[in-house]
Amino acid sequence: RINGDRLWDSLMEMAKIGPGVAGGNNRQTLTDEDGEGRALFQQWCEEAGCSMGLDQMGNMFAMRAGTDPDALPVYVGSHLDTQPTGGKYDGVLGVLAGLEVIRTLNDLGIRTKHPIVATNWTNEEGTRYAPAMLSSGVFAGMHTQDWAYARTDAEGKSFGDELARIGWRGEEEVGARKMHAFFELHIEQGPILEAEGKDIGVVTHGQGLSWTQVTITGKDAHTGSTPMPMRRNAGLGMARVLEKVDEIALSHAPHAVGAAGHIDVYPNSRNVIPGKVVFTVDFRSPELSVIEDMEARLRVEGQKIADAMGLEIAFEKVGGFDPVAFDEGCVSAIRNAAERLGYRHMNIISGAGHDACWINRVAPTAMVMCPCVDGLSHNEAEEISKEWAAAGADVLFHAVVETAEI
Amino acid sequence: RINGDRLWDSLMEMAKIGPGVAGGNNRQTLTDEDGEGRALFQQWCEEAGCSMGLDQMGNMFAMRAGTDPDALPVYVGSHLDTQPTGGKYDGVLGVLAGLEVIRTLNDLGIRTKHPIVATNWTNEEGTRYAPAMLSSGVFAGMHTQDWAYARTDAEGKSFGDELARIGWRGEEEVGARKMHAFFELHIEQGPILEAEGKDIGVVTHGQGLSWTQVTITGKDAHTGSTPMPMRRNAGLGMARVLEKVDEIALSHAPHAVGAAGHIDVYPNSRNVIPGKVVFTVDFRSPELSVIEDMEARLRVEGQKIADAMGLEIAFEKVGGFDPVAFDEGCVSAIRNAAERLGYRHMNIISGAGHDACWINRVAPTAMVMCPCVDGLSHNEAEEISKEWAAAGADVLFHAVVETAEI
Ligand SMILES: NC(=O)NCCC(=O)O
Ligand SMILES: NC(=O)NCCC(=O)O
Repeated sequence: RINGDRLWDSLMEMAKIGPGVAGGNNRQTLTDEDGEGRALFQQWCEEAGCSMGLDQMGNMFAMRAGTDPDALPVYVGSHLDTQPTGGKYDGVLGVLAGLEVIRTLNDLGIRTKHPIVATNWTNEEGTRYAPAMLSSGVFAGMHTQDWAYARTDAEGKSFGDELARIGWRGEEEVGARKMHAFFELHIEQGPILEAEGKDIGVVTHGQGLSWTQVTITGKDAHTGSTPMPMRRNAGLGMARVLEKVDEIALSHAPHAVGAAGHIDVYPNSRNVIPGKVVFTVDFRSPELSVIEDMEARLRVEGQKIADAMGLEIAFEKVGGFDPVAFDEGCVSAIRNAAERLGYRHMNIISGAGHDACWINRVAPTAMVMCPCVDGLSHNEAEEISKEWAAAGADVLFHAVVETAEI
Repeated sequence: RINGDRLWDSLMEMAKIGPGVAGGNNRQTLTDEDGEGRALFQQWCEEAGCSMGLDQMGNMFAMRAGTDPDALPVYVGSHLDTQPTGGKYDGVLGVLAGLEVIRTLNDLGIRTKHPIVATNWTNEEGTRYAPAMLSSGVFAGMHTQDWAYARTDAEGKSFGDELARIGWRGEEEVGARKMHAFFELHIEQGPILEAEGKDIGVVTHGQGLSWTQVTITGKDAHTGSTPMPMRRNAGLGMARVLEKVDEIALSHAPHAVGAAGHIDVYPNSRNVIPGKVVFTVDFRSPELSVIEDMEARLRVEGQKIADAMGLEIAFEKVGGFDPVAFDEGCVSAIRNAAERLGYRHMNIISGAGHDACWINRVAPTAMVMCPCVDGLSHNEAEEISKEWAAAGADVLFHAVVETAEI
């Protein structure tokens, strides 16, 4: 069994870096705080006897050597970056549980045949730089590194420049590493496990995602002296499109979700009719055909709304991945571990995207989930219990060690 | 006649301070650029032989002495602050036309019985600090100075602190000055004069305004893993309220307008369902009962929408003024001047709020308007012709001089 107290202490220690305003964290990717969090993780890994690798996307790989020099490593991890108003566990639990696997092996004096690598993937959240899971995506060959480097944040700062600025742009070629397997522990970020009274979710599939950035252009004009019929109100156009987004997602219920979380209005002045609005629509479903249908309908319905109002509308796909089926062998390793350890478990589909979704394309991959209170995530009030964290890390430990072979 | 070239040159010179990104201006109130614009105006006024007064709200009063020591001054002016993406004329024309009145009197060697005071009112736009026309409002006794000082911008900086920081917080008690009359020249900011082929609008009335800041609170949650029925999406609630705003304004057409120009979404992340949205609804009408009806319906309909969606909604009135009827004597002075000078003129109701709307409560007041291209304002592309500016300033000059008596 892993050391649940030590894991919890490390979670609380990491949460001190980039504290939020309401008990959670704001440690967004490639900020100074991200740099600080990485340094702490590196220090802990080195104290645990690991050597740290760093690739050109800033992905971190802390290796504990195996006994067989020819055996590929088993990777285990997640991400240390957070939402602007994120919780203390989303991503962080998976990285520190990877470290806890190594610490426990050290405690027990166990050597595995395959090396074990605790991993931190850069920019999983995708808030500061779209898309989400950017660096695991480059690792898996889904995006080119040049394209990733050229992503810009809202202030126009590029990913490549910011990665260099915080000092975490490595030399190693991205994706050159070959993996025996990859495992990721993550909080569910949804309400199902808690509602069903389960300790462990055995993740068999992941929902697919589509992010469409919509730009509606009207005309900035005075809110007082511009007659109603002469207005080209981009804000009102957005309102109508947002209603359609909801309608489209609900038409596929319960096999789809949809919303816009990001909305910027220009010039954003009380007495100026919005001349431009930029927002991102997030559609998800476990079925690819449903995602494709929602995307297509958004474009058709959005265009109709814009045409009827004399507005211009443009659509840009800024993120997306297809639904995922995880590796049967790795999934079984997790289910067997949960069974052996006596945890209540169930199969589950991940509602969120995870680095594991991309890595699954280049290595046998699976995920473990633990419940979170009220299914709440992407919120500073995100909460889990020490017991849930320990159960998840225990299952992870057994699945990893079984796969890495003693 | 005033010197139209000199007026135009001064407008272009002022526009160099706080240039926008698209040919207009970003010289928002109490920024460094606002301070620079004020310094240039002061320099010009002193060169024209005026002495500058400055009150505790930063209102500027450049006085040209009269011949009768007991006669109250005639005030003439507007505002130098701009929208974040504003034009070169909104407000600025009225201030510099006031200066041009004085320069022309100097050229002609005319002395008036009443002193003439070219005036710049602080924070007319209300973008950085709501409400609009803040300092003329304090002058007219509509707001207390303490309340005005405590207004904060989006970064939490207070009006009082920022006024001191830029060095334009004066000693003079606000509103202590008594006025013989107040005149303001302003661009129409609407399409009527141009459409009717008129050079001059004789402003008889001003629309009333109501600004309601609406805060909708739901729950930040993950866009992927939160089932649709469990969502409390504040962004979707806002969309529904924005549609109602449009519906309510249109139900009073053509005697009302309404829109939301300011919208902030929290935490504004692509994969977080908005937990909070703050936006400001701007309703206007020349009829008080219509404004009151729209305000009341917004609260009722907004509450219904929120209740149906499990959201919380709060309404705060952050600005407002009743419809205005300007002083008949001053309005006649303007109409007579336009008539005498042979300009095509018409009566008009101001769609926008102006400092004159507040000053009308404490002194006989009227306004002159000149057309602007396509009625466009609160937009960097705001444009007027040199001839329109000169015509407006000419009418202003004659009305002011007639009222100040030679
Ligand atoms: N787990 C997580 O929140 N990932 C970010 C990508 C997504 O929005 O699903
Ligand atoms: N003239 C002008 O734009 N004033 C600002 C107040 C308003 O929105 O009407």
